[in-house]
Amino acid sequence: MNIDFKTLAEKYQTPYYVYDFDHITKQYEELKSSFRARKSLIAYAVKANSNLSVIKHLADLGAGADCVSIGEVKRALKVGIPSYKIIFSGVGKSDDEITQALELDILMINVESAAELNRVEDIAKNLGKIARISIRVNPNIDPKTHPYISTGLHENKFGVDIDTAKRMYIQCKNSEFLEPTGIHCHIGSQLTQLQPIKDAVKIVAELVKNLKAIKIDLSFMDVGGGLGIIYDNEKLIDTYEYSQSILDAMFGLDVTVVCEPGRFIVGNSGVFVTKVLYEKVNGNKRFVIVDGAMNDLIRPALYNAYHKIEVLNDNKNLSDCNLVGPVCESGDFFAKNIQLPQTNHNDLVAIYSAGAYGFTMASNYNTRGRVAEIAVLNGQDRLIRRRETFEDLIALEEEFIK
Amino acid sequence: MNIDFKTLAEKYQTPYYVYDFDHITKQYEELKSSFRARKSLIAYAVKANSNLSVIKHLADLGAGADCVSIGEVKRALKVGIPSYKIIFSGVGKSDDEITQALELDILMINVESAAELNRVEDIAKNLGKIARISIRVNPNIDPKTHPYISTGLHENKFGVDIDTAKRMYIQCKNSEFLEPTGIHCHIGSQLTQLQPIKDAVKIVAELVKNLKAIKIDLSFMDVGGGLGIIYDNEKLIDTYEYSQSILDAMFGLDVTVVCEPGRFIVGNSGVFVTKVLYEKVNGNKRFVIVDGAMNDLIRPALYNAYHKIEVLNDNKNLSDCNLVGPVCESGDFFAKNIQLPQTNHNDLVAIYSAGAYGFTMASNYNTRGRVAEIAVLNGQDRLIRRRETFEDLIALEEEFIK
Repeated sequence: MNIDFKTLAEKYQTPYYVYDFDHITKQYEELKSSFRARKSLIAYAVKANSNLSVIKHLADLGAGADCVSIGEVKRALKVGIPSYKIIFSGVGKSDDEITQALELDILMINVESAAELNRVEDIAKNLGKIARISIRVNPNIDPKTHPYISTGLHENKFGVDIDTAKRMYIQCKNSEFLEPTGIHCHIGSQLTQLQPIKDAVKIVAELVKNLKAIKIDLSFMDVGGGLGIIYDNEKLIDTYEYSQSILDAMFGLDVTVVCEPGRFIVGNSGVFVTKVLYEKVNGNKRFVIVDGAMNDLIRPALYNAYHKIEVLNDNKNLSDCNLVGPVCESGDFFAKNIQLPQTNHNDLVAIYSAGAYGFTMASNYNTRGRVAEIAVLNGQDRLIRRRETFEDLIALEEEFIK
Repeated sequence: MNIDFKTLAEKYQTPYYVYDFDHITKQYEELKSSFRARKSLIAYAVKANSNLSVIKHLADLGAGADCVSIGEVKRALKVGIPSYKIIFSGVGKSDDEITQALELDILMINVESAAELNRVEDIAKNLGKIARISIRVNPNIDPKTHPYISTGLHENKFGVDIDTAKRMYIQCKNSEFLEPTGIHCHIGSQLTQLQPIKDAVKIVAELVKNLKAIKIDLSFMDVGGGLGIIYDNEKLIDTYEYSQSILDAMFGLDVTVVCEPGRFIVGNSGVFVTKVLYEKVNGNKRFVIVDGAMNDLIRPALYNAYHKIEVLNDNKNLSDCNLVGPVCESGDFFAKNIQLPQTNHNDLVAIYSAGAYGFTMASNYNTRGRVAEIAVLNGQDRLIRRRETFEDLIALEEEFIK
């Protein structure tokens, strides 16, 4: 990554998110090409970073979209991802979302419960449409990741077990308004071990074969996302090994493989850049206080997530500190007990691996406007979302003051 | 609380936040009147619930505002809280925020570090203004609350120790551009024990006396906020006992007492109302999936916070379940392992004690629009913030698509 954070800070102020679009291209191409022996669809998991320009960049590369709300479906369509490459997933779809998904004629609705399948059938019937259905199977496999982003165990809310899935496919087959189209499993996010993925895909491939035997032919096998990235010193799954394991498990099946990477594509493209306000020492504890806060990047507070941090000055005098933001709670930190150099007012601090689940989870807590988002492509920077003003923050409330 | 959640759901759709403004009045008056023997300012902690109509309601009752960003200061001014009742607190104020605070001539800037005091002095000098200063003292007292909302220990980033405070007051006295005006301490939020507050106030009162002896006369003593509310079965601090303890500790001091309640005022005024989408069973685990999610109310995921939950139907058939939202992570839950009745599609679920740190922490994660906020006063409901549309969500990005 060759980005001049200081120039960007002068041009756009701080804090900001910057994304290296060339890195996004590289990650997309690496994954896409690893499946080159096979019909494949790389459906970008929009929730990781839903900025319209990010999705547009992926659309131009040929990506589809894995969406978890009708809002995400509309984002994908807005920037030109064709409807036949859009999947609508998620455990809780409202009637209105299902209706819109059917009207927008997307590739398939990824159904996560028997109750949801009934809702989709009812709504499709009312609209006189045929709903293309994928069913999310929960293979009951421990993905060995953070409990909040682990999704493949029965104790999680996601998907249905194999027997329920089978019954649901039969319901699809017997319905005028449902068309069994795909199958899906996703066991968690930031996965760094291959074996749980292999196990899950094997279970799903087995089911696809069993369904074929009863004349239910699926066209898409969605193996989920979850490929990890390096935040610290994780040993990653090799992309080629990953794809080969999946293709092995799918041997003999004539289906398009669908993959839903999010973090893998954008995670390490992004850096959150913030500015030092002050240093202080309380008791024996040194604090470096910056202008970014938990409302901008909540992963440290929410998941106790590690992000690599770099102070952009020439000082080599390191000492232990907490890097914190201005928000009025002790949960507002980026790192605790890390070694950072002495800083001066206005020094920049780069917080890496912030391209996924960074801006998308930002809030206006403490009436802080959300920050600017910047793209860098071929050495050229440009704004892709402008910084929120006070007027933006009160726009939906102002007219109601009495 | 006498609010017809069903009628509101029909009128405004779900999910929504509703606030009982009569409860807000009651809480404000209870606290204000407990200090009636004394000059007092109840400065509402805007961060708890910063909706303009909520602040306006408190402004009309005579409240001041405790603000932690220039955005909050502007919110308070916008709805008519006079500048002389506005305090600007927080560990990290940017140069721009300090400048604006001085130009807006608010009551005082609550300074949290020696470095910050220097910044304020420099900026005041450049503007040719005198900055009224309060200093936040960190009394190193354990408030016995959640670590994320505990602020009164030296290991927290807040305030300065007594000796540093004293030096800073002397700097104020010796500066043409600084005026020592107040003192502040706040040891944490959702406090349910009186003793730590008493201890803290005593330490601060002692300092005020010592400062008087060296001819530094403060006019305001800000005892912070942090009064708890009942979420579950907490035994609360009695308001009158609270005020009397504070006034006792201040005996002999001629200062206005300032109190900064947030949660105490609005916490139990608010209810988050959401609708059942489906029920499902995974393995042995029952899930009730509603249309509200962690992006709307993050307290359960972030603090593991308890909220009382009620399903609004007549079913008495209780069983264990997790109440979860549609967001694609396992951290998206409102409650785990609670007894709830069987539900049907579209049943309403009320999540209580959601008036504080509810909407203010909401995000657009998963491209979910933030929900509507409704006020009820004298039995009349009205919208105080309209629901976000897809167009709202992309408004700051759309022009940058290339």
